[in-house]
Amino acid sequence: MTSDPGLAALRVDYPPWVRDQVAWGRAYRSDPDRMRLVIALARANVEQETGGPFGAAIFEAESGKLVSVGMNSVVRLNNCALHAEIVAFMMAQRRIGSFTLKAPNLAVHELVTSCEPCAMCLGATLWSGVSRVVCGAAREDATRLRFEEGPVFPESYRYLEDRGVRIARHVLREEAKEILELYRSRGGTIYNA
Amino acid sequence: MTSDPGLAALRVDYPPWVRDQVAWGRAYRSDPDRMRLVIALARANVEQETGGPFGAAIFEAESGKLVSVGMNSVVRLNNCALHAEIVAFMMAQRRIGSFTLKAPNLAVHELVTSCEPCAMCLGATLWSGVSRVVCGAAREDATRLRFEEGPVFPESYRYLEDRGVRIARHVLREEAKEILELYRSRGGTIYNA
Repeated sequence: MTSDPGLAALRVDYPPWVRDQVAWGRAYRSDPDRMRLVIALARANVEQETGGPFGAAIFEAESGKLVSVGMNSVVRLNNCALHAEIVAFMMAQRRIGSFTLKAPNLAVHELVTSCEPCAMCLGATLWSGVSRVVCGAAREDATRLRFEEGPVFPESYRYLEDRGVRIARHVLREEAKEILELYRSRGGTIYNA
Repeated sequence: MTSDPGLAALRVDYPPWVRDQVAWGRAYRSDPDRMRLVIALARANVEQETGGPFGAAIFEAESGKLVSVGMNSVVRLNNCALHAEIVAFMMAQRRIGSFTLKAPNLAVHELVTSCEPCAMCLGATLWSGVSRVVCGAAREDATRLRFEEGPVFPESYRYLEDRGVRIARHVLREEAKEILELYRSRGGTIYNA
């Protein structure tokens, strides 16, 4: 089937620890409750050495149902696009069977991420169909630790807000920042620095 | 293994026509030569009804070797992130076994895309490790046909150029634009409009 190496399919999966560490059945009611989950994902990714110090998840805004999780998988899967947010979007859309999380028959969805999104993930946020983004650590927390965020400007956020995406910042910021520092202190790879 | 629906792996593959329509073995020497390939990908994607009117490819800049192709796969794979450029980056990195196309032991790589990248793809371009981007249709050609490009500003491109990514525009622009018009005339879905 794939005599040419360019034709093989690509697989995106979760690291094994997700099976044991994520409580799928419960409702995550508040922003801090949701943020605690994504910070735990970021921490596990660092401690289990499966990727960079970033976690994300998609929730149904009203019910608090957990739809998908994401963790930085760039190094593990040799794929520059697999930031935590992108993994969370892809997995949520696969699960729901829709390329958008905003459709008349769907619940309202939101992205919760342990750090403000990079330029790629902010763009994807617009395409994803989430109605709200909740961020933990700030862009400057990441850049201070030499993580690049790319071409994100104040007007980038305004662009999303003008299209109905609400932004909440600094939810459990200190706890989220700690994971970035943990990664650095363990000598983790700063890919694309 | 996957009793919870959130845990299944996700698969990214090419539509079947790629096998017959892409000449992998030959060298693509010039910008127009490379652009003709990605325009043909965009056209095939429309005519075979496998996605939006966008094609992309990664080449070794010097040798003209084709490393990967990409075509918009948002609707086909229910995945908002699978723009042509992202598919091309992912497939190239899978093939090479590296999360960056810029490494001391690698050839210099470039992205050729049938239309100027959206905000997500422009961010990913920075993470991908390509040293140059060659664009066919312009942002305004896409937006005139109601394709959204997201928060891309002149300073977004400057941000990339300041980091060593060269940009070439309007290569076979009219031919590239034609595919956007073809898609519209056939009544193709404008997802995320």
